Amino acid sequence: MIDQLVQAIQKTKAPICVGLDPQMSFIPDTVKARAFEEFGETLEGAAEAIWEFNKAIVDATCDLIPSVKPQIAMYEQFGIPGLEAFKKTVEYCKAKGLIVIGDVKRGDIGSTSAAYAAAHLGRVMAGDREYAAFDEDFCTVNPYLGSDGVKPFLKECDAQDKGIFVLVKTSNPSSGEFQDRLVLVPSEDAEADGASSLLVTGKKEMTLHKLVKDADPELLKQYTVRPLYEIVGEKVAEWASEPRLIGESGYSEIGAVVGATYPEMGKKLRRIMPKSFILVPGYGAQGGKGDDLVPFFNKDGLGAVVNSSRGIIAAYTKEPYAEKYGPDGFADAARAAVKDMKKDIAQALKRL
Amino acid sequence: MIDQLVQAIQKTKAPICVGLDPQMSFIPDTVKARAFEEFGETLEGAAEAIWEFNKAIVDATCDLIPSVKPQIAMYEQFGIPGLEAFKKTVEYCKAKGLIVIGDVKRGDIGSTSAAYAAAHLGRVMAGDREYAAFDEDFCTVNPYLGSDGVKPFLKECDAQDKGIFVLVKTSNPSSGEFQDRLVLVPSEDAEADGASSLLVTGKKEMTLHKLVKDADPELLKQYTVRPLYEIVGEKVAEWASEPRLIGESGYSEIGAVVGATYPEMGKKLRRIMPKSFILVPGYGAQGGKGDDLVPFFNKDGLGAVVNSSRGIIAAYTKEPYAEKYGPDGFADAARAAVKDMKKDIAQALKRL
Repeated sequence: MIDQLVQAIQKTKAPICVGLDPQMSFIPDTVKARAFEEFGETLEGAAEAIWEFNKAIVDATCDLIPSVKPQIAMYEQFGIPGLEAFKKTVEYCKAKGLIVIGDVKRGDIGSTSAAYAAAHLGRVMAGDREYAAFDEDFCTVNPYLGSDGVKPFLKECDAQDKGIFVLVKTSNPSSGEFQDRLVLVPSEDAEADGASSLLVTGKKEMTLHKLVKDADPELLKQYTVRPLYEIVGEKVAEWASEPRLIGESGYSEIGAVVGATYPEMGKKLRRIMPKSFILVPGYGAQGGKGDDLVPFFNKDGLGAVVNSSRGIIAAYTKEPYAEKYGPDGFADAARAAVKDMKKDIAQALKRL
Repeated sequence: MIDQLVQAIQKTKAPICVGLDPQMSFIPDTVKARAFEEFGETLEGAAEAIWEFNKAIVDATCDLIPSVKPQIAMYEQFGIPGLEAFKKTVEYCKAKGLIVIGDVKRGDIGSTSAAYAAAHLGRVMAGDREYAAFDEDFCTVNPYLGSDGVKPFLKECDAQDKGIFVLVKTSNPSSGEFQDRLVLVPSEDAEADGASSLLVTGKKEMTLHKLVKDADPELLKQYTVRPLYEIVGEKVAEWASEPRLIGESGYSEIGAVVGATYPEMGKKLRRIMPKSFILVPGYGAQGGKGDDLVPFFNKDGLGAVVNSSRGIIAAYTKEPYAEKYGPDGFADAARAAVKDMKKDIAQALKRL
């Protein structure tokens, strides 16, 4: 699937995806009114409004873009009808030739992650028959539970020619709270020697001062101090390096999520994960700018796909689009915003 | 909601929940055959089998237990029909007087977490009307994105009298890969002084040896070295200490997930999060034993709720239940397994 994403990016000259995160406040009143008239002020009505809104956005932009990223939470909040709208959106986008990144951020212990992987990338059996539940092309995965929570997704990527993006450094303001924590990392040798346990066993509430005062200086040389997101990035690189998961483009089915709001970290992570595409949220409404995106790309102009959600789908609510298009022109405003985003990124990537 | 959980635990004398994780392989052939006969070998058929299986388990155990924990992945893999079975299961369990912990492990950036929180604990608006999508009593939350991913859940807990369990230390074998990483933690004073930035700014691939060689010894005294799960546990304790979220029982709506497979860590985390209930997975099939559970409880015999999934719902597949009950007696086997689990835990808690 990564090769298809690469081809679609090359064809559209746009390393972007449009985030289909249809908060009700983004949907013009006329669209909502039509849906509520048909289905009442019900979950079905809300889901219909979402679906009609998405469809118009997709119709207006699909020739310009390689991919979309529906955020399942925005659908899940409307229960079963909302999730039906999610499924319909996925199918419609795929029929329009778009690559669909399901932003689901799932992750659990092994057997449970296997069920999530089946739900979003794979197949399930009902008796002797096989079905696909949501069948996105890629999905996002939360790594907090470690390898055995991620491996079932790797397996589906291999079996179904799909891909994932693992959360490494997210775009939100408090992402650093855990992700940026400075971690003591033993060298491979130290780990093999059991040195890491020498350093920590039985030490409670140990200050750094006391820990290093008591320790063999040679042992201290075997530890580096690095932020957690780098450790997660290294794991992604390890998962991504599996030859069966690397496409003809040279890129792996296993990518990472790194927020546009942290370009310095993006630069480092770009080096740590050479085979991985980086899904970059946070452009536009969250504050990331075109120039911030350069470090996420490789010299070949590939290696990243930049998401914009409200900057595109709610473009009609903000200048310079609001005056020209207004609520009734929301789809045309989205098209104009996509064109501007493409220009902004193309301009920035000249610096590569 | 935490007070209702405490009352239900006291009434049933059982600090447990039954994990409704109906993998198809756990469902007896006769139940599947009936469902497939009615709905065909379809997602609807699979969902019907899940629902009939759950209903029988709940009917056979609901007078003995305070709570259930349906794992949404097992339903999500069967798409819309599967999620309908999830919703029906939640509603049925609530109607039977059980407290429902939705094991959904959601978590995202702020605005998206707000949608997840609405989906599972809260309400959404469709026009002027308010609906609840899945409406569990508690749900599980993944903290990897930090406070702004968790706060929307706290808000719903307050507004809707609901609760959450935040993943701190999960039960799976690779949970240590990131959760156990040793983190350099600045003291509050050091953080206020900007000392943490003194220690790290601009230092790349720094060995611990070099870092401490160059640093002021006084600064080193202001850092402790602790595993990441403790830092997450401290955040949970902070969220849990909000007075509006503390019930009459003295416990907070904000709890934590800590695996039964790591009792030593459970002991430490019990101290770190005094106001929080701990949801303890990993008992039974994953290897946790009754005696391992003691550290998760407070002296009052409260403070933890222990989950068993396949140990109960698939009891009929294993001795001592298999011979006595067989597949047709799966619900009675579940009841017997619940009774044995209660005895095992009651016995262990005598040590408190």
